[in-house]
Amino acid sequence: MDLYFSPLACSLASRIALYEANADARFIEVDPQTKLTLAGDDYRAIYPLGLVPLLRLDDGALLPEGAAILQYIAARYPKAELGGRDDLERARLQQWLGFIGTELHKALFIPLFDKGLSEEAKARVRAKGESRLAFLDNYLRGREFLLDRFSVADAYLYTVLNWTASTKVDLTPWTGITAYHKRLQARPSIARSFKEELALYQAELARHKAA
Amino acid sequence: MDLYFSPLACSLASRIALYEANADARFIEVDPQTKLTLAGDDYRAIYPLGLVPLLRLDDGALLPEGAAILQYIAARYPKAELGGRDDLERARLQQWLGFIGTELHKALFIPLFDKGLSEEAKARVRAKGESRLAFLDNYLRGREFLLDRFSVADAYLYTVLNWTASTKVDLTPWTGITAYHKRLQARPSIARSFKEELALYQAELARHKAA
Repeated sequence: MDLYFSPLACSLASRIALYEANADARFIEVDPQTKLTLAGDDYRAIYPLGLVPLLRLDDGALLPEGAAILQYIAARYPKAELGGRDDLERARLQQWLGFIGTELHKALFIPLFDKGLSEEAKARVRAKGESRLAFLDNYLRGREFLLDRFSVADAYLYTVLNWTASTKVDLTPWTGITAYHKRLQARPSIARSFKEELALYQAELARHKAA
Repeated sequence: MDLYFSPLACSLASRIALYEANADARFIEVDPQTKLTLAGDDYRAIYPLGLVPLLRLDDGALLPEGAAILQYIAARYPKAELGGRDDLERARLQQWLGFIGTELHKALFIPLFDKGLSEEAKARVRAKGESRLAFLDNYLRGREFLLDRFSVADAYLYTVLNWTASTKVDLTPWTGITAYHKRLQARPSIARSFKEELALYQAELARHKAA
């Protein structure tokens, strides 16, 4: 399998899941500005929307959408126990993947990353995000993971919570969330993934600066 | 099971899925402005985020998030064949649920519904949405459904495409999408769901006007 990714983008969650599963995968870096792979291939010719992650399966089929990729990895490597074990647990996993993808990733962080969006519009986004963070914080207090053990939903939540620094989302009132994020940061698959992608991200910034 | 819904909101997709499955379900209407049920109960006391849909399972457990509810219904009523039959088909279903939920529902329609968002910010949202609609249109040409038969992803896509009228998203250039939407509108479960919720929506507007 090949995973198309950009350093520290939401594709980080798929890398974490692949490491957790001990999967044999190749990682192909896409520059988020130029939409070229580091080898110079036009990523939009591979996936017209230009979004990462994208998984190339062993038969060559392409699977986009982070939540789908995460659940595919969980299903493909059942021994790693990264998904739900029955219908209800799968529903809970999908509930959290949905919440993270829609309420946090798309409704909170993506607008805050948008350099062209006015500060007034961003203030509205932040205000709406408060209730989501409060809900999540309340849920995470006294829990180690989103389900009763580590799952791909944790890989995704960890990844989007990394973005609070660059979007200036203040997590200090949410001690349930900050404790969760800190615990996950120490997990080997996550510490390794973050360290590797941070180095690639710094290289990306250096390339852009030089260009 | 109880489904908390608001007329013509994204919860319409869950109603369609329940009708397709011939499920025994009760529908509890939530006013999107007051966040009260029609019986006068405080919906935020049931689900703090106040979002619909929410499914109350037979044991009383509450399941939020539309994509999770849709997949739960598909898993609970396998004879209706509303979900994926194997890992790859489930991945494709999740791909489309993810695309609809993040790229269309949250990134395109929710900002356009926001009365407080500036026209300038909405223009940015529309411009970004163009590429998503083009991608979807290209995929739908020559296809009847998102998968090779009707699935809960079609119930969801039909539902969000209904919002183009009120958000003034012009679908006329996208003949693949408009033909798909028209075909689905004629499907019995969808025609029935839409007719019922349209009447409830009109009653909701009349209530707000009277208040």
